[in-house]
Amino acid sequence: MLIGKVTGNIWATRKLDGLNGFKLMIVSLVNSDGADSKSAMVAVDTVGAGIGDMVLVARGGAARKAAMIHEGPVDAAIVGIVDNMEISG
Amino acid sequence: MLIGKVTGNIWATRKLDGLNGFKLMIVSLVNSDGADSKSAMVAVDTVGAGIGDMVLVARGGAARKAAMIHEGPVDAAIVGIVDNMEISG
Amino acid sequence: MLIGKVTGNIWATRKLDGLNGFKLMIVSLVNSDGADSKSAMVAVDTVGAGIGDMVLVARGGAARKAAMIHEGPVDAAIVGIVDNMEISG
Amino acid sequence: MLIGKVTGNIWATRKLDGLNGFKLMIVSLVNSDGADSKSAMVAVDTVGAGIGDMVLVARGGAARKAAMIHEGPVDAAIVGIVDNMEISG
Amino acid sequence: MLIGKVTGNIWATRKLDGLNGFKLMIVSLVNSDGADSKSAMVAVDTVGAGIGDMVLVARGGAARKAAMIHEGPVDAAIVGIVDNMEISG
Repeated sequence: MLIGKVTGNIWATRKLDGLNGFKLMIVSLVNSDGADSKSAMVAVDTVGAGIGDMVLVARGGAARKAAMIHEGPVDAAIVGIVDNMEISG
Repeated sequence: MLIGKVTGNIWATRKLDGLNGFKLMIVSLVNSDGADSKSAMVAVDTVGAGIGDMVLVARGGAARKAAMIHEGPVDAAIVGIVDNMEISG
Repeated sequence: MLIGKVTGNIWATRKLDGLNGFKLMIVSLVNSDGADSKSAMVAVDTVGAGIGDMVLVARGGAARKAAMIHEGPVDAAIVGIVDNMEISG
Repeated sequence: MLIGKVTGNIWATRKLDGLNGFKLMIVSLVNSDGADSKSAMVAVDTVGAGIGDMVLVARGGAARKAAMIHEGPVDAAIVGIVDNMEISG
Repeated sequence: MLIGKVTGNIWATRKLDGLNGFKLMIVSLVNSDGADSKSAMVAVDTVGAGIGDMVLVARGGAARKAAMIHEGPVDAAIVGIVDNMEISG
C-alpha cells in the first residue's frame, strides 16, 4: 500500500454512477523519509479519513475490494488511518 | 485514481476494434501541488470531457469496467470531471 | 494507455512460447509535451506498427486481451497507430 | 518483485477488517546500485520480517495470494527475506 | 514488458513456498537509450537467463502465467533473453 497525507477533497458532479456516494480525497504521497513525493492521487475513502490524516492507500483490485464495488470504476481506496509510524534503520 | 488536465485528442485510424467509438483523450497528469507532472496518458472518455477539463482517470481493470468493455484493450478511462478541488494541509 | 514512439525491434530466440509469432517492438514513451520521457518498454504489435510510428500501448490485462492470449506472458501491446495528436490547453 | 529495506512499522487502529492481524511494515525501496530510491510502501508481512531486513515485496494480485486473503484490501506483501545478494556485471 | 540487464542473484531462505524452486534474479532496467535507469526488480527466471543477459520482464498476472503458478506470490518473471536490439529513429 502507499502512504500519503490527505490534502484535499474533490467534487465532481459529472462522474460515473459507480463513484456516487464516495468521498473522493486527494492524497499526497510521501517518500521513505516522510517528505512530500510530489505525486498525488484521488482515492475513495472507506474508513472516515479527514484532511491532514496520514493514510494507507490500496490500489487496483484491492481498492475495489476495499470499497466493495467489484464492478466499479475505482482503482484507489483509503484503507487505514495511520496512528503512528515508527521509522528507524 | 489519477488527476490530470485534458490537453488534447488522438486520432488513430489503425487501431483495435475494441477502441472504436471511444474519444481518445490526452490527459496530462498533475502533481500534488497541481503543477504539470510531465507525465501523460491517453484515456477513453466515458463522461463527456472536453479539452481543458480537470478529470479523474481510472486505470487497469477499473478502466474496462468504466468503459463497459470487459474484453477491450483499454487500461485508462476518464471517469469524472472535477468541478472543484479543495486543497489544504 | 501510454503514448510512445516505436524506436526499434527486439529479437529473442530463447523466449516463452506464448511470445512466439509476435513482433516485439521497443516503444520510447513520451511526456505531456511530446518529448522522450527516457522510459522504454517492449510491446507486442497487434496493429502492424513500424519504426517511427507514434503508437498507443495498453498494459496489463488489457494487453493480453489485445493480443488475444489470455494465458500468455504479455503485459504490453501496441493497440493503435496515432494519425494525429491535437494538443492544446 | 521489488527489493527494499524494512525501515519501520505502521499502527492504524482505524483500518479495514481485512488488514487486521497483519504486521504493516514500511519498506524503503532500493535502486539497482542498492541505494535508497526514496520510494516507500507499506506491505503486510507474511514471512516474519524485522526492521533492517532486506526483503522482497510482491504487489497487486500476487500480494493477496501471498497473504491468502483473495478478497482483502492488500496490494503489497513481504514474501521473502534476502539472505544474500550477489551483484555483478 | 520491461527491458533490463540481469545484474545479480538473490538468495532468500525465509520465503513463501510459492517462490521455492525459482531462480530469483536482479534485473536492472534500462532507459530508451539503453542506459541503466537506476530502477531494479527481482524476477523469477523462466528461460534460463544468466548474469549479463539483456532480458524481457513481464509483470503482474503475466508473470504468474509465465511461471505457471497462478496462485503464487510472483509479480515479475523473465520471459525472454534478448539476442539483438535494433534501435533507430
